[in-house]
Amino acid sequence: MPAKKLSEAEVTTLLSKTKGWNLVNGKLHREFACKDFVSAFGNMTRVALVAEAMNHHPEWSNVWNKVVIDLNTHSVKGISDYDFVLAEKINEIFEPFPPLGLSGSGKASDLFGV
Amino acid sequence: MPAKKLSEAEVTTLLSKTKGWNLVNGKLHREFACKDFVSAFGNMTRVALVAEAMNHHPEWSNVWNKVVIDLNTHSVKGISDYDFVLAEKINEIFEPFPPLGLSGSGKASDLFGV
Amino acid sequence: MPAKKLSEAEVTTLLSKTKGWNLVNGKLHREFACKDFVSAFGNMTRVALVAEAMNHHPEWSNVWNKVVIDLNTHSVKGISDYDFVLAEKINEIFEPFPPLGLSGSGKASDLFGV
Amino acid sequence: MPAKKLSEAEVTTLLSKTKGWNLVNGKLHREFACKDFVSAFGNMTRVALVAEAMNHHPEWSNVWNKVVIDLNTHSVKGISDYDFVLAEKINEIFEPFPPLGLSGSGKASDLFGV
Repeated sequence: MPAKKLSEAEVTTLLSKTKGWNLVNGKLHREFACKDFVSAFGNMTRVALVAEAMNHHPEWSNVWNKVVIDLNTHSVKGISDYDFVLAEKINEIFEPFPPLGLSGSGKASDLFGV
Repeated sequence: MPAKKLSEAEVTTLLSKTKGWNLVNGKLHREFACKDFVSAFGNMTRVALVAEAMNHHPEWSNVWNKVVIDLNTHSVKGISDYDFVLAEKINEIFEPFPPLGLSGSGKASDLFGV
Repeated sequence: MPAKKLSEAEVTTLLSKTKGWNLVNGKLHREFACKDFVSAFGNMTRVALVAEAMNHHPEWSNVWNKVVIDLNTHSVKGISDYDFVLAEKINEIFEPFPPLGLSGSGKASDLFGV
Repeated sequence: MPAKKLSEAEVTTLLSKTKGWNLVNGKLHREFACKDFVSAFGNMTRVALVAEAMNHHPEWSNVWNKVVIDLNTHSVKGISDYDFVLAEKINEIFEPFPPLGLSGSGKASDLFGV
Protein backbone atom coordinates (compact mmCIF):
# COMPACT_ATOMS: atom_id res chain seq x y z
CA MET A 1 0.00 0.00 0.00
CA PRO A 2 1.52 3.36 -0.94
CA ALA A 3 2.03 5.99 1.74
CA LYS A 4 -0.93 8.38 2.15
CA LYS A 5 -0.20 12.07 2.69
CA LEU A 6 -1.83 13.44 5.84
CA SER A 7 -3.41 16.87 6.12
CA GLU A 8 -2.22 19.34 8.72
CA ALA A 9 -5.32 18.59 10.77
CA GLU A 10 -4.72 14.84 10.59
CA VAL A 11 -1.10 15.30 11.66
CA THR A 12 -2.17 17.44 14.62
CA THR A 13 -4.73 14.88 15.73
CA LEU A 14 -2.33 11.94 15.42
CA LEU A 15 0.48 13.81 17.17
CA SER A 16 -1.76 14.30 20.20
CA LYS A 17 -1.97 10.51 20.47
CA THR A 18 1.71 9.79 19.78
CA LYS A 19 3.70 10.18 22.93
CA GLY A 20 6.81 12.30 22.87
CA TRP A 21 6.79 13.34 19.19
CA ASN A 22 6.52 16.89 17.87
CA LEU A 23 6.47 18.52 14.47
CA VAL A 24 9.85 20.17 13.82
CA ASN A 25 10.76 21.56 10.39
CA GLY A 26 7.89 19.65 8.84
CA LYS A 27 9.01 16.30 10.26
CA LEU A 28 7.96 14.12 13.18
CA HIS A 29 10.74 14.60 15.70
CA ARG A 30 11.75 12.86 18.92
CA GLU A 31 14.94 12.63 20.96
CA PHE A 32 15.86 9.73 23.21
CA ALA A 33 18.51 9.39 25.90
CA CYS A 34 19.46 5.78 26.69
CA LYS A 35 21.63 4.33 29.44
CA ASP A 36 24.76 4.21 27.31
CA PHE A 37 26.00 3.57 23.76
CA VAL A 38 25.27 -0.15 23.96
CA SER A 39 21.61 0.51 24.76
CA ALA A 40 21.33 3.27 22.20
CA PHE A 41 22.82 1.24 19.36
CA GLY A 42 20.88 -1.90 20.33
CA ASN A 43 17.69 0.13 20.03
CA MET A 44 18.87 1.62 16.74
CA THR A 45 19.39 -1.90 15.41
CA ARG A 46 15.83 -2.82 16.35
CA VAL A 47 14.55 0.33 14.64
CA ALA A 48 16.68 -0.49 11.58
CA LEU A 49 15.11 -3.96 11.32
CA VAL A 50 11.59 -2.53 11.59
CA ALA A 51 12.35 0.28 9.13
CA GLU A 52 13.86 -2.03 6.51
CA ALA A 53 10.86 -4.36 6.77
CA MET A 54 8.53 -1.35 6.24
CA ASN A 55 10.83 0.02 3.53
CA HIS A 56 10.43 3.31 5.36
CA HIS A 57 13.61 4.67 6.92
CA PRO A 58 14.30 7.35 9.51
CA GLU A 59 16.56 10.35 9.35
CA TRP A 60 18.51 9.95 12.54
CA SER A 61 21.65 10.83 14.41
CA ASN A 62 23.46 9.41 17.40
CA VAL A 63 26.01 10.67 19.89
CA TRP A 64 26.85 8.06 22.54
CA ASN A 65 23.58 7.55 24.49
CA LYS A 66 21.51 10.06 22.49
CA VAL A 67 19.39 9.21 19.49
CA VAL A 68 17.55 11.94 17.54
CA ILE A 69 14.97 10.82 14.99
CA ASP A 70 13.08 12.69 12.27
CA LEU A 71 10.40 11.09 10.14
CA ASN A 72 8.78 12.21 6.94
CA THR A 73 7.86 10.65 3.60
CA HIS A 74 9.65 11.75 0.45
CA SER A 75 7.12 10.18 -1.92
CA VAL A 76 4.31 12.39 -0.57
CA LYS A 77 6.49 15.40 0.23
CA GLY A 78 5.18 15.53 3.76
CA ILE A 79 3.96 13.39 6.63
CA SER A 80 2.21 10.11 5.85
CA ASP A 81 0.51 7.31 7.78
CA TYR A 82 3.81 5.41 7.52
CA ASP A 83 5.52 8.02 9.68
CA PHE A 84 3.07 7.53 12.52
CA VAL A 85 3.27 3.74 12.27
CA LEU A 86 7.06 3.94 12.51
CA ALA A 87 6.88 6.52 15.34
CA GLU A 88 4.73 4.14 17.40
CA LYS A 89 7.10 1.24 16.76
CA ILE A 90 10.06 3.39 17.76
CA ASN A 91 8.26 4.33 20.98
CA GLU A 92 7.78 0.63 21.77
CA ILE A 93 11.46 -0.07 21.11
CA PHE A 94 12.82 2.76 23.25
CA GLU A 95 10.31 2.36 26.09
CA PRO A 96 10.70 -1.25 27.10
CA PHE A 97 9.15 -1.12 30.57
CA PRO A 98 5.50 -2.09 30.28
CA PRO A 99 2.93 -1.52 33.01
CA LEU A 100 3.11 -4.56 35.24
CA GLY A 101 0.56 -7.13 34.16
CA LEU A 102 0.64 -6.16 30.52
CA SER A 103 2.29 -8.38 27.98
CA GLY A 104 5.52 -6.67 27.22
CA SER A 105 4.36 -4.55 24.32
CA GLY A 106 6.31 -1.65 25.72
CA LYS A 107 3.69 1.11 25.80
CA ALA A 108 4.50 2.37 29.23
CA SER A 109 6.37 4.82 31.31
CA ASP A 110 8.92 7.08 29.81
CA LEU A 111 12.02 5.82 31.57
CA PHE A 112 14.27 6.47 28.61
CA GLY A 113 12.48 9.55 27.29
CA VAL A 114 14.31 12.84 27.20
CA MET B 1 44.31 -8.65 32.69
CA PRO B 2 44.46 -12.21 31.30
CA ALA B 3 41.57 -14.56 31.92
CA LYS B 4 41.94 -16.65 35.10
CA LYS B 5 40.92 -20.32 34.98
CA LEU B 6 38.36 -21.21 37.62
CA SER B 7 38.33 -24.46 39.58
CA GLU B 8 35.30 -26.74 39.54
CA ALA B 9 34.40 -25.53 43.01
CA GLU B 10 34.67 -21.89 42.00
CA VAL B 11 32.48 -22.51 38.95
CA THR B 12 29.86 -24.23 41.11
CA THR B 13 29.81 -21.37 43.59
CA LEU B 14 29.57 -18.67 40.93
CA LEU B 15 26.89 -20.57 39.01
CA SER B 16 24.71 -20.55 42.11
CA LYS B 17 24.81 -16.74 41.99
CA THR B 18 24.34 -16.38 38.22
CA LYS B 19 20.70 -16.59 37.37
CA GLY B 20 19.63 -18.94 34.61
CA TRP B 21 23.01 -20.35 33.62
CA ASN B 22 24.06 -24.00 33.83
CA LEU B 23 27.17 -25.96 33.00
CA VAL B 24 26.57 -27.95 29.78
CA ASN B 25 29.42 -29.75 28.01
CA GLY B 26 31.94 -27.81 30.03
CA LYS B 27 30.52 -24.42 29.07
CA LEU B 28 28.26 -21.87 30.72
CA HIS B 29 24.93 -22.27 28.94
CA ARG B 30 21.71 -20.30 28.80
CA GLU B 31 18.79 -20.10 26.38
CA PHE B 32 16.60 -17.04 25.91
CA ALA B 33 13.24 -16.62 24.20
CA CYS B 34 12.46 -13.05 23.17
CA LYS B 35 9.29 -11.49 21.81
CA ASP B 36 10.32 -11.83 18.18
CA PHE B 37 13.32 -11.67 15.84
CA VAL B 38 13.65 -7.90 16.19
CA SER B 39 14.00 -8.18 19.97
CA ALA B 40 16.31 -11.18 19.73
CA PHE B 41 18.67 -9.58 17.23
CA GLY B 42 18.60 -6.23 19.03
CA ASN B 43 19.75 -8.02 22.16
CA MET B 44 22.38 -9.93 20.20
CA THR B 45 23.73 -6.63 18.93
CA ARG B 46 24.05 -5.34 22.47
CA VAL B 47 25.84 -8.54 23.49
CA ALA B 48 28.11 -8.21 20.43
CA LEU B 49 29.12 -4.68 21.48
CA VAL B 50 29.87 -5.81 25.03
CA ALA B 51 31.74 -8.91 23.85
CA GLU B 52 33.91 -7.01 21.37
CA ALA B 53 34.79 -4.45 24.05
CA MET B 54 35.81 -7.32 26.39
CA ASN B 55 37.55 -9.13 23.54
CA HIS B 56 35.69 -12.16 24.83
CA HIS B 57 33.09 -13.58 22.45
CA PRO B 58 30.22 -16.02 22.89
CA GLU B 59 29.43 -19.19 21.00
CA TRP B 60 25.81 -18.60 20.11
CA SER B 61 22.98 -19.51 17.82
CA ASN B 62 19.68 -17.93 16.90
CA VAL B 63 16.43 -19.12 15.39
CA TRP B 64 13.85 -16.31 15.13
CA ASN B 65 13.10 -15.34 18.78
CA LYS B 66 15.45 -17.90 20.38
CA VAL B 67 19.05 -17.19 21.37
CA VAL B 68 21.25 -19.97 22.78
CA ILE B 69 24.56 -18.93 24.31
CA ASP B 70 27.60 -20.94 25.45
CA LEU B 71 30.58 -19.37 27.17
CA ASN B 72 34.04 -20.69 27.83
CA THR B 73 37.61 -19.45 27.50
CA HIS B 74 39.94 -21.00 24.94
CA SER B 75 43.09 -19.50 26.43
CA VAL B 76 42.54 -21.32 29.73
CA LYS B 77 40.85 -24.41 28.24
CA GLY B 78 37.93 -24.05 30.59
CA ILE B 79 35.77 -21.55 32.40
CA SER B 80 37.32 -18.24 33.48
CA ASP B 81 36.25 -15.13 35.37
CA TYR B 82 35.59 -13.51 31.97
CA ASP B 83 32.81 -16.01 31.31
CA PHE B 84 30.95 -15.03 34.45
CA VAL B 85 31.41 -11.32 33.79
CA LEU B 86 29.97 -11.78 30.30
CA ALA B 87 27.16 -14.01 31.61
CA GLU B 88 26.08 -11.26 34.03
CA LYS B 89 26.15 -8.65 31.30
CA ILE B 90 24.09 -10.90 29.03
CA ASN B 91 21.56 -11.34 31.83
CA GLU B 92 21.25 -7.56 32.14
CA ILE B 93 20.76 -7.22 28.38
CA PHE B 94 18.08 -9.88 28.08
CA GLU B 95 16.27 -8.94 31.30
CA PRO B 96 15.58 -5.27 30.88
CA PHE B 97 12.89 -4.83 33.52
CA PRO B 98 14.49 -3.59 36.75
CA PRO B 99 12.84 -3.78 40.14
CA LEU B 100 10.75 -0.64 40.52
CA GLY B 101 12.69 2.04 42.30
CA LEU B 102 16.06 0.87 41.11
CA SER B 103 17.96 2.83 38.53
CA GLY B 104 17.59 0.80 35.36
CA SER B 105 20.51 -1.52 35.90
CA GLY B 106 18.42 -4.39 34.61
CA LYS B 107 19.06 -7.00 37.31
CA ALA B 108 15.53 -8.14 37.71
CA SER B 109 12.76 -10.48 36.86
CA ASP B 110 13.03 -13.08 34.19
CA LEU B 111 10.38 -11.82 31.78
CA PHE B 112 12.24 -13.01 28.73
CA GLY B 113 13.77 -16.13 30.27
CA VAL B 114 12.90 -19.55 28.84
CA MET C 1 3.28 -14.56 -1.93
CA PRO C 2 3.46 -17.72 0.20
CA ALA C 3 6.57 -19.85 0.07
CA LYS C 4 6.46 -22.61 -2.56
CA LYS C 5 7.82 -26.05 -1.63
CA LEU C 6 10.48 -27.26 -4.05
CA SER C 7 10.84 -30.85 -5.23
CA GLU C 8 14.07 -32.74 -4.70
CA ALA C 9 14.90 -32.27 -8.37
CA GLU C 10 14.27 -28.54 -8.18
CA VAL C 11 16.47 -28.25 -5.11
CA THR C 12 19.27 -30.16 -6.84
CA THR C 13 19.08 -27.91 -9.91
CA LEU C 14 19.02 -24.70 -7.90
CA LEU C 15 21.86 -25.86 -5.63
CA SER C 16 24.07 -26.33 -8.68
CA LYS C 17 23.61 -22.60 -9.38
CA THR C 18 24.00 -21.38 -5.82
CA LYS C 19 27.65 -21.02 -4.95
CA GLY C 20 28.88 -22.61 -1.76
CA TRP C 21 25.63 -24.10 -0.46
CA ASN C 22 24.93 -27.77 0.15
CA LEU C 23 22.00 -29.79 1.43
CA VAL C 24 22.74 -30.92 5.00
CA ASN C 25 20.06 -32.56 7.16
CA GLY C 26 17.38 -31.36 4.77
CA LYS C 27 18.48 -27.73 4.95
CA LEU C 28 20.50 -25.42 2.75
CA HIS C 29 23.82 -25.09 4.56
CA ARG C 30 26.84 -22.84 4.23
CA GLU C 31 29.71 -21.83 6.51
CA PHE C 32 31.60 -18.56 6.26
CA ALA C 33 34.89 -17.47 7.79
CA CYS C 34 35.33 -13.69 7.99
CA LYS C 35 38.34 -11.63 9.00
CA ASP C 36 37.25 -11.23 12.61
CA PHE C 37 34.22 -10.80 14.84
CA VAL C 38 33.55 -7.26 13.64
CA SER C 39 33.29 -8.42 10.03
CA ALA C 40 31.25 -11.48 10.95
CA PHE C 41 28.72 -9.58 13.05
CA GLY C 42 28.49 -6.73 10.54
CA ASN C 43 27.56 -9.28 7.90
CA MET C 44 25.10 -10.94 10.27
CA THR C 45 23.43 -7.56 10.78
CA ARG C 46 23.03 -7.14 7.04
CA VAL C 47 21.56 -10.66 6.79
CA ALA C 48 19.23 -9.86 9.70
CA LEU C 49 17.90 -6.77 7.91
CA VAL C 50 17.30 -8.73 4.70
CA ALA C 51 15.72 -11.64 6.58
CA GLU C 52 13.35 -9.44 8.59
CA ALA C 53 12.26 -7.64 5.41
CA MET C 54 11.53 -11.05 3.79
CA ASN C 55 9.95 -12.32 7.00
CA HIS C 56 12.11 -15.38 6.40
CA HIS C 57 14.79 -15.98 9.02
CA PRO C 58 17.88 -18.18 9.11
CA GLU C 59 18.96 -20.76 11.64
CA TRP C 60 22.48 -19.63 12.33
CA SER C 61 25.36 -19.75 14.75
CA ASN C 62 28.50 -17.70 15.27
CA VAL C 63 31.82 -18.23 16.98
CA TRP C 64 34.11 -15.19 16.56
CA ASN C 65 34.83 -15.01 12.79
CA LYS C 66 32.74 -18.05 11.84
CA VAL C 67 29.11 -17.93 10.75
CA VAL C 68 27.19 -21.14 10.01
CA ILE C 69 23.81 -20.79 8.32
CA ASP C 70 21.00 -23.27 7.68
CA LEU C 71 17.91 -22.40 5.69
CA ASN C 72 14.59 -24.19 5.38
CA THR C 73 10.93 -23.23 5.44
CA HIS C 74 8.73 -24.39 8.31
CA SER C 75 5.47 -23.55 6.54
CA VAL C 76 6.22 -26.02 3.72
CA LYS C 77 8.18 -28.51 5.86
CA GLY C 78 11.10 -28.42 3.45
CA ILE C 79 13.02 -26.17 1.10
CA SER C 80 11.18 -23.35 -0.66
CA ASP C 81 11.95 -20.67 -3.21
CA TYR C 82 12.42 -18.28 -0.27
CA ASP C 83 15.42 -20.28 0.92
CA PHE C 84 17.22 -19.85 -2.38
CA VAL C 85 16.40 -16.15 -2.57
CA LEU C 86 17.84 -15.69 0.93
CA ALA C 87 20.87 -17.89 0.12
CA GLU C 88 21.71 -15.68 -2.86
CA LYS C 89 21.35 -12.52 -0.78
CA ILE C 90 23.59 -14.02 1.90
CA ASN C 91 26.20 -14.83 -0.74
CA GLU C 92 26.14 -11.20 -1.90
CA ILE C 93 26.57 -9.99 1.68
CA PHE C 94 29.48 -12.26 2.55
CA GLU C 95 31.24 -12.03 -0.81
CA PRO C 96 31.33 -8.37 -1.66
CA PHE C 97 34.01 -8.58 -4.35
CA PRO C 98 32.31 -9.54 -7.58
CA PRO C 99 34.25 -10.65 -10.63
CA LEU C 100 34.88 -7.49 -12.62
CA GLY C 101 32.13 -6.86 -15.11
CA LEU C 102 29.61 -9.09 -13.39
CA SER C 103 26.77 -7.69 -11.37
CA GLY C 104 25.33 -9.24 -8.30
CA SER C 105 26.94 -7.85 -5.22
CA GLY C 106 29.22 -4.88 -5.06
CA LYS C 107 28.11 -3.74 -8.52
CA ALA C 108 31.02 -1.32 -8.90
CA SER C 109 33.79 0.39 -7.10
CA ASP C 110 31.90 3.68 -7.05
CA LEU C 111 29.18 2.31 -4.80
CA PHE C 112 31.07 3.10 -1.69
CA GLY C 113 32.53 6.37 -2.90
CA VAL C 114 31.55 9.71 -1.44
CA MET D 1 46.21 5.28 27.45
CA PRO D 2 44.38 8.61 27.61
CA ALA D 3 43.66 10.51 24.41
CA LYS D 4 46.40 12.98 23.42
CA LYS D 5 45.37 16.39 22.08
CA LEU D 6 46.88 17.14 18.69
CA SER D 7 48.14 20.54 17.61
CA GLU D 8 46.76 22.24 14.52
CA ALA D 9 49.93 21.32 12.65
CA GLU D 10 49.68 17.68 13.70
CA VAL D 11 46.05 17.56 12.59
CA THR D 12 46.94 19.05 9.20
CA THR D 13 49.73 16.54 8.68
CA LEU D 14 47.60 13.56 9.68
CA LEU D 15 44.64 14.73 7.58
CA SER D 16 46.85 14.71 4.50
CA LYS D 17 47.42 10.98 5.09
CA THR D 18 43.80 10.11 5.96
CA LYS D 19 41.80 9.60 2.82
CA GLY D 20 38.51 11.42 2.47
CA TRP D 21 38.44 13.26 5.80
CA ASN D 22 38.36 17.03 6.27
CA LEU D 23 38.23 19.37 9.22
CA VAL D 24 34.71 20.81 9.52
CA ASN D 25 33.65 22.86 12.54
CA GLY D 26 36.66 21.62 14.46
CA LYS D 27 35.87 17.95 13.86
CA LEU D 28 37.13 15.27 11.51
CA HIS D 29 34.34 14.90 8.96
CA ARG D 30 33.52 12.41 6.23
CA GLU D 31 30.40 11.44 4.34
CA PHE D 32 29.77 8.03 2.82
CA ALA D 33 27.19 6.85 0.29
CA CYS D 34 26.59 3.10 0.35
CA LYS D 35 24.57 0.87 -1.97
CA ASP D 36 21.46 0.95 0.17
CA PHE D 37 20.25 1.02 3.77
CA VAL D 38 21.33 -2.58 4.42
CA SER D 39 24.92 -1.79 3.45
CA ALA D 40 24.92 1.50 5.32
CA PHE D 41 23.59 0.04 8.56
CA GLY D 42 25.81 -3.04 8.31
CA ASN D 43 28.80 -0.72 8.10
CA MET D 44 27.47 1.37 10.98
CA THR D 45 27.26 -1.80 13.07
CA ARG D 46 30.90 -2.58 12.34
CA VAL D 47 31.86 0.97 13.28
CA ALA D 48 29.78 0.67 16.46
CA LEU D 49 31.67 -2.47 17.49
CA VAL D 50 35.03 -0.82 16.86
CA ALA D 51 33.99 2.38 18.63
CA GLU D 52 32.68 0.60 21.72
CA ALA D 53 35.88 -1.44 21.96
CA MET D 54 37.91 1.80 21.77
CA ASN D 55 35.47 3.52 24.14
CA HIS D 56 35.58 6.34 21.59
CA HIS D 57 32.31 7.02 19.80
CA PRO D 58 31.40 8.97 16.68
CA GLU D 59 28.87 11.71 16.19
CA TRP D 60 26.99 10.42 13.18
CA SER D 61 23.82 10.57 11.20
CA ASN D 62 22.19 8.35 8.61
CA VAL D 63 19.56 8.77 5.94
CA TRP D 64 18.98 5.57 3.96
CA ASN D 65 22.31 4.93 2.15
CA LYS D 66 24.11 8.01 3.50
CA VAL D 67 26.28 8.05 6.60
CA VAL D 68 27.83 11.30 7.85
CA ILE D 69 30.48 11.03 10.56
CA ASP D 70 32.16 13.64 12.77
CA LEU D 71 34.95 12.80 15.17
CA ASN D 72 36.42 14.76 18.02
CA THR D 73 37.47 14.10 21.61
CA HIS D 74 35.56 15.71 24.46
CA SER D 75 38.20 14.93 27.07
CA VAL D 76 40.80 17.02 25.23
CA LYS D 77 38.36 19.58 23.80
CA GLY D 78 39.70 19.02 20.31
CA ILE D 79 41.12 16.40 17.99
CA SER D 80 43.16 13.56 19.47
CA ASP D 81 45.11 10.57 18.23
CA TYR D 82 42.00 8.49 18.95
CA ASP D 83 40.08 10.37 16.26
CA PHE D 84 42.60 9.46 13.59
CA VAL D 85 42.75 5.84 14.69
CA LEU D 86 38.96 5.64 14.46
CA ALA D 87 38.92 7.51 11.12
CA GLU D 88 41.31 4.93 9.63
CA LYS D 89 39.21 2.05 10.93
CA ILE D 90 36.08 3.65 9.49
CA ASN D 91 37.82 3.98 6.12
CA GLU D 92 38.64 0.27 6.19
CA ILE D 93 35.03 -0.59 7.01
CA PHE D 94 33.43 1.57 4.32
CA GLU D 95 35.99 0.87 1.59
CA PRO D 96 36.18 -2.88 1.37
CA PHE D 97 37.53 -3.12 -2.18
CA PRO D 98 41.29 -3.53 -1.98
CA PRO D 99 43.59 -2.69 -4.87
CA LEU D 100 43.59 -5.63 -7.29
CA GLY D 101 46.37 -8.01 -6.49
CA LEU D 102 46.16 -7.44 -2.77
CA SER D 103 44.38 -10.47 -1.36
CA GLY D 104 41.16 -10.01 -3.32
CA SER D 105 40.69 -13.68 -4.03
CA GLY D 106 36.97 -13.55 -3.43
CA LYS D 107 37.02 -15.78 -0.36
CA ALA D 108 35.25 -14.28 2.60
CA SER D 109 38.14 -15.13 4.86
CA ASP D 110 40.58 -12.79 3.16
CA LEU D 111 38.28 -10.21 1.67
CA PHE D 112 38.93 -7.71 4.37
CA GLY D 113 42.68 -8.09 4.69
CA VAL D 114 44.39 -4.80 5.23
